[in-house]
Amino acid sequence: MADVLIPAVTMVARMPSLMDCAPILPVPVAEISGEASVGAEEAPLILAGVLLSLIVIYLASKVGGEFCARINLPPVLGELVGGVAVGVSALHLLIFPEAGAVETTPSLLVSFLGATTGAGLETAIAVSQTYSEVISILAELGVVILLFEIGLESDLQELIRVGPQAVIVAIVGVVAPFLSGTLGLIYLFHMTAIPAIFAGAALTATSIGITAKVLAELQQLSSEEGQIIIGAAVLDDVLGIIVLAVVASLAKTGEVEISNIVYLVLSSVIFLVGSIVLGRFFSPYFVALVDKLQTRGDLLLSSLIFVFFLSYIATAIHLEAILGAFTAGLVLAETDKHKGLEEQVIPLADTFVPIFFVCVGAKTDVSVLNPLVPENREGLVIAAFLIIVAIIGKVITGFTILGQPEINRLAIGVGMIPRGEVGLVFAGVGSASGALSRPLEAAIIVMVILTTFLAPPMLRVVFQSSDSGEPALNAEVASATVEDVDT
Amino acid sequence: MADVLIPAVTMVARMPSLMDCAPILPVPVAEISGEASVGAEEAPLILAGVLLSLIVIYLASKVGGEFCARINLPPVLGELVGGVAVGVSALHLLIFPEAGAVETTPSLLVSFLGATTGAGLETAIAVSQTYSEVISILAELGVVILLFEIGLESDLQELIRVGPQAVIVAIVGVVAPFLSGTLGLIYLFHMTAIPAIFAGAALTATSIGITAKVLAELQQLSSEEGQIIIGAAVLDDVLGIIVLAVVASLAKTGEVEISNIVYLVLSSVIFLVGSIVLGRFFSPYFVALVDKLQTRGDLLLSSLIFVFFLSYIATAIHLEAILGAFTAGLVLAETDKHKGLEEQVIPLADTFVPIFFVCVGAKTDVSVLNPLVPENREGLVIAAFLIIVAIIGKVITGFTILGQPEINRLAIGVGMIPRGEVGLVFAGVGSASGALSRPLEAAIIVMVILTTFLAPPMLRVVFQSSDSGEPALNAEVASATVEDVDT
Repeated sequence: MADVLIPAVTMVARMPSLMDCAPILPVPVAEISGEASVGAEEAPLILAGVLLSLIVIYLASKVGGEFCARINLPPVLGELVGGVAVGVSALHLLIFPEAGAVETTPSLLVSFLGATTGAGLETAIAVSQTYSEVISILAELGVVILLFEIGLESDLQELIRVGPQAVIVAIVGVVAPFLSGTLGLIYLFHMTAIPAIFAGAALTATSIGITAKVLAELQQLSSEEGQIIIGAAVLDDVLGIIVLAVVASLAKTGEVEISNIVYLVLSSVIFLVGSIVLGRFFSPYFVALVDKLQTRGDLLLSSLIFVFFLSYIATAIHLEAILGAFTAGLVLAETDKHKGLEEQVIPLADTFVPIFFVCVGAKTDVSVLNPLVPENREGLVIAAFLIIVAIIGKVITGFTILGQPEINRLAIGVGMIPRGEVGLVFAGVGSASGALSRPLEAAIIVMVILTTFLAPPMLRVVFQSSDSGEPALNAEVASATVEDVDT
Repeated sequence: MADVLIPAVTMVARMPSLMDCAPILPVPVAEISGEASVGAEEAPLILAGVLLSLIVIYLASKVGGEFCARINLPPVLGELVGGVAVGVSALHLLIFPEAGAVETTPSLLVSFLGATTGAGLETAIAVSQTYSEVISILAELGVVILLFEIGLESDLQELIRVGPQAVIVAIVGVVAPFLSGTLGLIYLFHMTAIPAIFAGAALTATSIGITAKVLAELQQLSSEEGQIIIGAAVLDDVLGIIVLAVVASLAKTGEVEISNIVYLVLSSVIFLVGSIVLGRFFSPYFVALVDKLQTRGDLLLSSLIFVFFLSYIATAIHLEAILGAFTAGLVLAETDKHKGLEEQVIPLADTFVPIFFVCVGAKTDVSVLNPLVPENREGLVIAAFLIIVAIIGKVITGFTILGQPEINRLAIGVGMIPRGEVGLVFAGVGSASGALSRPLEAAIIVMVILTTFLAPPMLRVVFQSSDSGEPALNAEVASATVEDVDT
């Protein structure tokens, strides 16, 4: 699950402000939503805000990524840290109104925008909602393109071959952390059932985006371990949607809607299997059609139509857009166009994907990690417990694979550790439902931050120990392939 | 000038609806603008709307572009026509709330979105403003990237060499249509001064986007004629901003603000000359920095930071973002990285640029062209006059170049004909100021549509006649270079 759902949650709190206004409004709601309030001089200002945000995002991603590459850490970690540096936790440059920041002080970027364009602070604040929304959507398109690229570099045959192992890894990786987390909170921390179940649910997530990116950087995406991790992470994404639906309805109504679960399970299976089967059937016609095209962007745009089509269907049936993008990548990887397509997707991914990672970092409030603040301490104790469960609960998954003595079981388990944006969604939904106490909510966020930020370097270490130092070299080869074009 | 300004105008009419609400609101305006009204379930819906719009845009651009390529017309014309087909004039799939469509009936795409996602029509309408705004920004980024690509493929030395000719072409191309249009309307059609001046001003515009794209398709961008056209079109863009400022203040206050004109002239000259001089000075350091980077996207992202930086400055000083992007392209074209960069920009341009052209088409209401509607007829008569002036006024510019008998003077003049989105901005500003009568406004729009849609095929003919049929072949070579990568 991408961070699509995060605004969904935090938005709720601000709904009344509009409702106060709505009853006396003579115009339909659609009129005052969107940018209807943005007047004449403000239209170019939205573009200016988007440009400024992109400059900040790219600078943060490059500075962070290059720094991490130099100290032998995965560049994506640097992008996340770069995001934290420019986001709500530190420099306050990139603030998303969803995070509730507009109510207090405007971001530095908004002030800068207002001052440099001469539009004034108030006008800049008025457009900040709109351009932040544009950046959020660009970030979501970023993770869609990332998963498309991952799918394109994956091997469907290999994925089917490792399917049974991936299923075991995914299921153990959901059940083990959920049970140990929930029961531990109930028996060790004497919590009631609902908040404990929420925290347990947050432990089940796997951030496919972060893991896949690190695997790609280590050139381990097409290894057997890599394909098991990707397969399991995709299944975890589906399981995560189902767990979230169950927990959310449990918190809301106190009971579980069976029909909803059955619908989600069925629709995911039908979608994944159906689009792969249909996709493989139609892909020869797709290739034949692309061969007939004469104008620029023939292959790339035709492929993007297919990617966005499957992403849309996935969103429409309440799954995630990234599932559709990944499946589209898998299908197109099977065609003989995949090599040329991969080359063209690289610049697109380079442009869009950093937006996603920097935004994830920018939206993460790391102030809950500060032990000097007294109210953080109770949360940090719970967090310590959650982190242990989060790591052990996923690490053991690799050891559930029977046979295959040569496989790197530790790497598979470690690959499932990062909770990323998915874990934040659980924290957000829990917080909105009122089920979570303040310390427990902080503990979940701390767990998500640490698993997300620790997993990339851990993953590098466990792959390095098995390949005796080679992956680090491979990672530079990976970035060198892009540079070859320049020279 | 890009279509950045179009919403600026049509927005004004809807401002009161918000104002009605504002005084009794306990929250700041920023609260109810943006997507604050978009509740919990609607967040993934925005992404779904963007995906759906992109599918429609890409389908329209490919179907239109391929069709035109087959009947030997420039593909970009097909993208415009494809946009008209899916836009406000025909299929009503891609509607921009700025065009005032939300008030009447929701677009087909919005209905489809509401039905397929199960969100319902009202929810879909509520998010349509936001996702349309995202598409508008993507279109603007599209023209930014197009002008960056054009700048990258231009030759600064050649541009400086043809500079004097370009200046003459630009100035004659502004003065001739303005004077003949304004005086013609006053003396032949007995109009008052202000509306006649508005219509005359609309005749001065040149759409650099459309002309540059056609030149690139004809492989004439680096020819002497091509460089004169590009140079003159860039100057026209600056002149257009100045003319618009003059006309708008004339319509509003009845007098011309000299200080504003001086500011615009000075800031354009300082910006263009300053960024090229400083850019050339700093570009060796830029290249050295890029050479030191190790992570993916090193060259592309560093370049985009530079492009967006100059675009931002241009916007901030009230010029156009595309001027900054073009200048950035010119500067980077001088470095030894330009070959590798061009290759990486192609997929990015292929993804973004069609959004711009399809959106220009989608926003154009061609119903004013229908002579069967009685109220269109008066406008069509004025339009016939304006079109003649529009074509002759620009075609003569090529013949003002002294010496150089071998140059294709007709091609230069024809290259300046398309008014594109810039002409629509004039119509929009005029319409908002209340200075234009309904027939005159319709006439300006008809003039813009026809010059925009006729110029690409005319340009192909005039270049073809001089090169005896070769350019058509070249255009296919141009698209083949992209395809080479696939095989």
